[in-house]
Amino acid sequence: MSLLVTGSIGIDTVETPFGTSENCLGGSAVYFSMAASYFAPVRFIGAIGADCPFDLHEFFHGREIDLTGLEIRQMSKTFRWKGSYFGRMNEAITNGLELNVLAEDPPAVPELFRDSKYIFLANTNPMLQMQLLEQLEKPLFVAADTMNCWIERSITDLKSLLKNVHALVLNEDEARALAQEENLIQAGRKILEMGPEFTVIKKGESGSIICKKSGEKFLLPAYPADVVKDPTGAGDSFAGAMMGYLANVQNIDFENLKKAVAYGTVAASFTIADFSVDGISKIKRADIDDRFELLKKMTQI
Amino acid sequence: MSLLVTGSIGIDTVETPFGTSENCLGGSAVYFSMAASYFAPVRFIGAIGADCPFDLHEFFHGREIDLTGLEIRQMSKTFRWKGSYFGRMNEAITNGLELNVLAEDPPAVPELFRDSKYIFLANTNPMLQMQLLEQLEKPLFVAADTMNCWIERSITDLKSLLKNVHALVLNEDEARALAQEENLIQAGRKILEMGPEFTVIKKGESGSIICKKSGEKFLLPAYPADVVKDPTGAGDSFAGAMMGYLANVQNIDFENLKKAVAYGTVAASFTIADFSVDGISKIKRADIDDRFELLKKMTQI
Repeated sequence: MSLLVTGSIGIDTVETPFGTSENCLGGSAVYFSMAASYFAPVRFIGAIGADCPFDLHEFFHGREIDLTGLEIRQMSKTFRWKGSYFGRMNEAITNGLELNVLAEDPPAVPELFRDSKYIFLANTNPMLQMQLLEQLEKPLFVAADTMNCWIERSITDLKSLLKNVHALVLNEDEARALAQEENLIQAGRKILEMGPEFTVIKKGESGSIICKKSGEKFLLPAYPADVVKDPTGAGDSFAGAMMGYLANVQNIDFENLKKAVAYGTVAASFTIADFSVDGISKIKRADIDDRFELLKKMTQI
Repeated sequence: MSLLVTGSIGIDTVETPFGTSENCLGGSAVYFSMAASYFAPVRFIGAIGADCPFDLHEFFHGREIDLTGLEIRQMSKTFRWKGSYFGRMNEAITNGLELNVLAEDPPAVPELFRDSKYIFLANTNPMLQMQLLEQLEKPLFVAADTMNCWIERSITDLKSLLKNVHALVLNEDEARALAQEENLIQAGRKILEMGPEFTVIKKGESGSIICKKSGEKFLLPAYPADVVKDPTGAGDSFAGAMMGYLANVQNIDFENLKKAVAYGTVAASFTIADFSVDGISKIKRADIDDRFELLKKMTQI
């Protein structure tokens, strides 16, 4: 079943204790699609400017990623992000941000994509996420990501969006901020009262938690990565593999949800092992499956 | 199989967002013994001063905790600790510390306890931990806890101790400091090179990791506690249930180690639900087993 994603395409410059990667390919939709493509065909929506040095068609060559929704805007500039990670690398310091094309109208959903069933709204202004959602005919399953700035600046729009999504994927600080609750389990419960059937709270190197409206919970540690060179894109890769797995099995029961989150965890572990998209792109599906089995073995009592 | 513990007995004053508990019973050996006693008979070694308002015989009444090793020193004062927790409560702020009896010679191991087989050396000066260990005849399994101040001040003694213990239990910041390594998986590996067969790295609300010399790993999230009133004693309760379980099954294979750590996680979740030892003392073994099953259900892919 086809999976639609909309999010950013970025030119990133990232500095970590392991080196610097200048003007490399990044962006939530890019990481997401790369990870998702190991599981299901992806429909990609995003915009770049004329300055973009990356040929996404070439970059995604050989993968089932449909770029019909890629807009190249001749009068615009591509989104750029400069960030650094220090020490434990569990937080990115933003040193430079040029929204550029992300500050313009969002790309339209191509006619061919309007029947998409599995939808991922990567992090952006919740009003834009809502506008995108309204262009779809009958989505079966919609998940969204968000971040602190929208919780602070656009809480009304975000709460409207939450009434229209099945799942919200966000990190632990965002969950606490959205729920206005320090206890993460209670925060999860409060977020579910805002609309979604379930929420996936990402805790970086401490794993993730799924909370379902029915009260079920699933707790998964992160894969014990002994090489972490660049955490950029970990959350987007997580979401990509999770959604890709769900779009492939076409069944959102709790057992599949658990597996989907485990695949997400594994995808993130490949992403962080190298700079930019190198970690997630230079592997095979069998590598993901092997690591999934290892993770399973290491977490079963 | 009997389990011997030596550690502190304290008069604690603790402030959390949920209230204040003044001059309540605390100390590593107390929390440890309480949690361990659900699994195995405990031999207790510790010292208090004449000022101690608690009758430990009465307090432990009905539990198999042998207080032969409890010294009441008429000329001494009991260890006191004042601490506060804020916000997420994942770090204690020490507002007052009186070592008192803990600054004196450690209590001797009673003749009756010298044949103990399972030993837990709760956190104290590693030289004292070593002295205690030397008084034992033929321990089968020795685990130790430590903390930052000994890593900073007594690294040589600590490294000698590590050559003589089977397991080291410590929190993630301590593991990073001891190994001088930010990556926790690599830190675990470096600690094992210092001596122990395995290390249990506690990550508070983010669970725990076991690293074994053979390369096996086990990752367990914390129990998703929706009520956390006072985190004091969580780590000691964790160690108590873990060691109690191992002393009971008398088998330290990896499958039992995993279960032991899961029982430790469950015991900690009871401790943090109330002030002082109220959370861990007002339950039955069946409550622990029920929560163990719940934790298992929530973590199995």
